[in-house]
Amino acid sequence: MSEFATRLTQRMLRHGPLCAGIDPSAATLAKCGLPDSAEGALEFGKLILRAADGEVAVVKPQSGFFERFGSAGMKAIEELAALARAQEVPVLLDVKRGDIDSTADAYAHAYFHPSSPVRVDAITLSPYLGVQALKSSFELAAAQGCGIFVVVRSSNPEGEALQTARMADGRMVWETLAAEITAFNKLLSKHPVGPIGAVVGATCSDAGAVVAALPHSFILSPGIGAQGATLGDCRVRMAAARGRILPNVSRELIAKGTTAEAIGATIRRLNSEARALLA
Amino acid sequence: MSEFATRLTQRMLRHGPLCAGIDPSAATLAKCGLPDSAEGALEFGKLILRAADGEVAVVKPQSGFFERFGSAGMKAIEELAALARAQEVPVLLDVKRGDIDSTADAYAHAYFHPSSPVRVDAITLSPYLGVQALKSSFELAAAQGCGIFVVVRSSNPEGEALQTARMADGRMVWETLAAEITAFNKLLSKHPVGPIGAVVGATCSDAGAVVAALPHSFILSPGIGAQGATLGDCRVRMAAARGRILPNVSRELIAKGTTAEAIGATIRRLNSEARALLA
Repeated sequence: MSEFATRLTQRMLRHGPLCAGIDPSAATLAKCGLPDSAEGALEFGKLILRAADGEVAVVKPQSGFFERFGSAGMKAIEELAALARAQEVPVLLDVKRGDIDSTADAYAHAYFHPSSPVRVDAITLSPYLGVQALKSSFELAAAQGCGIFVVVRSSNPEGEALQTARMADGRMVWETLAAEITAFNKLLSKHPVGPIGAVVGATCSDAGAVVAALPHSFILSPGIGAQGATLGDCRVRMAAARGRILPNVSRELIAKGTTAEAIGATIRRLNSEARALLA
Repeated sequence: MSEFATRLTQRMLRHGPLCAGIDPSAATLAKCGLPDSAEGALEFGKLILRAADGEVAVVKPQSGFFERFGSAGMKAIEELAALARAQEVPVLLDVKRGDIDSTADAYAHAYFHPSSPVRVDAITLSPYLGVQALKSSFELAAAQGCGIFVVVRSSNPEGEALQTARMADGRMVWETLAAEITAFNKLLSKHPVGPIGAVVGATCSDAGAVVAALPHSFILSPGIGAQGATLGDCRVRMAAARGRILPNVSRELIAKGTTAEAIGATIRRLNSEARALLA
């Protein structure tokens, strides 16, 4: 198994499969009584980390909410990532980058290189420029023991038409992407799970077929909670991926209160329910 | 015409249509004798600005090369963007972001809100989650007098299969995107050119058909120089978009020397040739 897959699988078994989203939107910061600033965003991230107390698979800061504060927001990501990693909580930074050639390499370098100030364990990438354009990013991730989650089927309804369009050979866009990701995982790792995961929305009615086409990938599954899907949907729809599913919950984390205790209780409950995805 | 389109059209007529890319890769910084650091990246950006001396349509910093340096890199973008804007040179920040719901709003806020530290004139977005998911970003851009360039047909060969896949109604992905962008431009502006532009590679053999389907958009055209296309290709292939084409040149800018004088001479030559795209 790749270093990333080994670490993540062990964590999922020991600490549960939950992915705790860190989405410091203006609305969330207001709800938590925190200022709408880089400092507030960092405090919110620390609050989620404290509440989780190590008992999640990964934390997933959403870059967009930090980028609102420019360099100060990026500094907050740096501090948050370093803090999480010091507590051995892996960081999946949700950046949905995607570019070609030397620019693609620069993004991979930015988030995976040991000397980078924003070094994290995994990032999300968007594949509109073609999965093959991400090849060198995949290789750099694997070489650094990191992971990449490629958006394959997004949780929002507006993405379906494009993601299910038919390529020249008759396969759907997501089918081709899944096949390419699977090929890369075989190339980059001799073990059952490789470093290239996929984002597949728990809201997607075709999620079962999608994850079945990704037998060597971790599945990051957004859409649970505010977007309408449940952990039960995840379990039923993604049966083929049991043991490899990271259900992401973000806004739901503060639905029952915004103290570390309340958020901690919510995380423990969700993570406990999510353990059904491991069986 | 939208405020963005008015400003950009005037600039293209007065100062030429060239988009000067600012891509401080490690290789480029080494070639210029600059350190591979945020300071080096900022110096490189200033060098291009000084060399251009206002005689370009826009400058396009490539975010990935700055993100390598974390918050210090983002600070360099802030300083560079402020400097360019103080010289009335519009900044198109190439970030290729793309997300949904409140995250999409956060990205638009990050780059267009007057209070944002990284306020720029335009950004690029990637449409894998569906153009409709970008609606509120388009609206915020328009409200702030800013522009968005959606990647429709990328300049790299790996993107073609996905971008030409057929949606359920038989239209290709790029055709649907182009129609949706055109509808948004009509909605957001009563004038011939709207705030939602498109990225169409000069290298694409179908570029003519693509730009013909985008009658109300500026066309940012990468792929010239290092990727193999010429300004002549742009002129021939994109005849339908004359007057609205921004040809981007990045690596080519330092091909004939790395002093401000040499780069300035290259920019003047390319911008002069590019004026053929206005006629």
